[in-house]
Amino acid sequence: MSGGELYGLIMAGGRGTRFWPVSTRSNPKQFLNLLDDSTMLQMTAERLRGLCPDDHVLVVTGSSYRKTVAAQLPWIPEENVLLEPMGRNTAPCIAWGAQALSRRAPDGAVMLVVPSDHSIDDKAGFESTVRVAVNAAEKGYLTTIGVPPTRPATGYGYLKRGKRIMDGAWKVAEFKEKPDLKTARDYLDQGCYLWNAGMFVWKVEEIIGSMRSFLPDLAEGVAGLGEVTFPSADRYRELPSVSVDYGIMEKASNVAMVEALFGWDDVGDWPAMRRVGVRKGEVILQDCGSCTVYGPGRLTVLLGMSDCSVVHSNGITLVMSDEHAQDLKKLVARLEKERPDLV
Amino acid sequence: MSGGELYGLIMAGGRGTRFWPVSTRSNPKQFLNLLDDSTMLQMTAERLRGLCPDDHVLVVTGSSYRKTVAAQLPWIPEENVLLEPMGRNTAPCIAWGAQALSRRAPDGAVMLVVPSDHSIDDKAGFESTVRVAVNAAEKGYLTTIGVPPTRPATGYGYLKRGKRIMDGAWKVAEFKEKPDLKTARDYLDQGCYLWNAGMFVWKVEEIIGSMRSFLPDLAEGVAGLGEVTFPSADRYRELPSVSVDYGIMEKASNVAMVEALFGWDDVGDWPAMRRVGVRKGEVILQDCGSCTVYGPGRLTVLLGMSDCSVVHSNGITLVMSDEHAQDLKKLVARLEKERPDLV
Repeated sequence: MSGGELYGLIMAGGRGTRFWPVSTRSNPKQFLNLLDDSTMLQMTAERLRGLCPDDHVLVVTGSSYRKTVAAQLPWIPEENVLLEPMGRNTAPCIAWGAQALSRRAPDGAVMLVVPSDHSIDDKAGFESTVRVAVNAAEKGYLTTIGVPPTRPATGYGYLKRGKRIMDGAWKVAEFKEKPDLKTARDYLDQGCYLWNAGMFVWKVEEIIGSMRSFLPDLAEGVAGLGEVTFPSADRYRELPSVSVDYGIMEKASNVAMVEALFGWDDVGDWPAMRRVGVRKGEVILQDCGSCTVYGPGRLTVLLGMSDCSVVHSNGITLVMSDEHAQDLKKLVARLEKERPDLV
Repeated sequence: MSGGELYGLIMAGGRGTRFWPVSTRSNPKQFLNLLDDSTMLQMTAERLRGLCPDDHVLVVTGSSYRKTVAAQLPWIPEENVLLEPMGRNTAPCIAWGAQALSRRAPDGAVMLVVPSDHSIDDKAGFESTVRVAVNAAEKGYLTTIGVPPTRPATGYGYLKRGKRIMDGAWKVAEFKEKPDLKTARDYLDQGCYLWNAGMFVWKVEEIIGSMRSFLPDLAEGVAGLGEVTFPSADRYRELPSVSVDYGIMEKASNVAMVEALFGWDDVGDWPAMRRVGVRKGEVILQDCGSCTVYGPGRLTVLLGMSDCSVVHSNGITLVMSDEHAQDLKKLVARLEKERPDLV
């Protein structure tokens, strides 16, 4: 029982405001080489090359990033880059991608959906995990990848493991919102909670059917976009802005989870960078605790500092306490009004 | 009863390691324009111009700074720049300067001794204060300038005000070492303790006589330096390294204090800079407490930071907690071994 060939959908529409000043409106996080010589988008696409041919990879991004994607992923055919007139959360982007694939593979396809700006430490483990997820998807499951937690993270949603379906796959007993620290510690102790990594594998026909059931307005709206890579902004704006987790996964009954055989981090803010190894530039530390430094080409010297991030980019230096990392969005919003040249 | 004309002696030999990375071995604090377009040495020299003619100002500095002093103070005659082969604290530098003046003004002179790297907020008040001190000096007193404290500073020595001598001048009842915070608060409450600002006015013959009484080895050693602006390193090294406060002022009985009619700060480290208004560059703050930023030409953005200094210079950024400001000397000492190119 095959679901057809595997296709990949890379979601690359984010703004990445929590990585200002390196990440800006014109050059957000997924297009930056924060971790490595390659950008996060390039690393994401590279991970898919072992799983499906280059012309089976779609990228959904903002229309203003067309040239950036073409420059960073020259091997992806132009017609595989879907340009959103504006971001409308994950469900519209996935529904649109699924529709495009249903036209290309009318006899059926399996699709893998991945964000473009996460860190994954083991390409082979990723491939093995996806192959297990493809098996579950071919059985008709909407499959999500759960990452065994390594710390009591409060910044992620969790999946509660349910009944075993097959080797390496389980039903999802429950979706859990971001927990408080106490709850996150309980989850870590109990062992049956995994991080929701926002990566999905399913048959194209299955996700389209689920959209029709749970988000009929979205299914109808996407059908009206036509067979284009840059749809009408007026029509796209009308699509309901909802996440695929909330709109589909939490409502469907045929939801499965496979356990990630790789280390994962969503690298959500500057403090997270110290877990994944950012490009520091040269750094000298004395009497310091945990700090993030980003600044290729600059020498950063920290004396007696802890729990903060120091980021250099284009003549700007940001120094931010960890406690306030979530407020960087607010600061960027303020700068958008006061100093739009900086963001 | 005149003591003769007024001469100035500017002590400009400091290393300024507590201002790294802006201050370096080749360009220490007194030669930097940290506060203003002028350097601290230039501001110091400018303050003396209302008090004595340009050719009455001597500068004592390290021999490697000869060209820097000439460039920053072109109006000072070359023969007025005394070049120390190495720093030996304040007493040798002052004794040597006094000897030079006794040759130039054999009929007697009054000398004003000032550090080159302090901040003084009121030139007219400074001049008035010096004039009072000159009166006391002409009466034979070794006169020091006391600054009424504005906060319970633990980084300064204190002078206890004694019996009134004349208008604006008192005996010094006691010299006090740097106090702990509780003691500093007591001093502030009691009102009879003033900061020892390390500025002195005395007759040349009086300080030379006092050197002979209290530091005879020094007096003899200085006499052996000869009439040169760059003495033998071997001879200079033999001079006892002692401060004029400890070596003379705390021992002599004819010590007077005049009260400063100006605001003063020794600007001893980066945290002190926020009291005197450093050249920040452009700064954006959100949810911040007290911080120092120095970085002309750079934009510094602080989010949720308090009690720290951020300093940019020549491709280096230092971020330092206030608690560790005193450890910057240690860090620079470490870099002198590990990365001498940086200091």
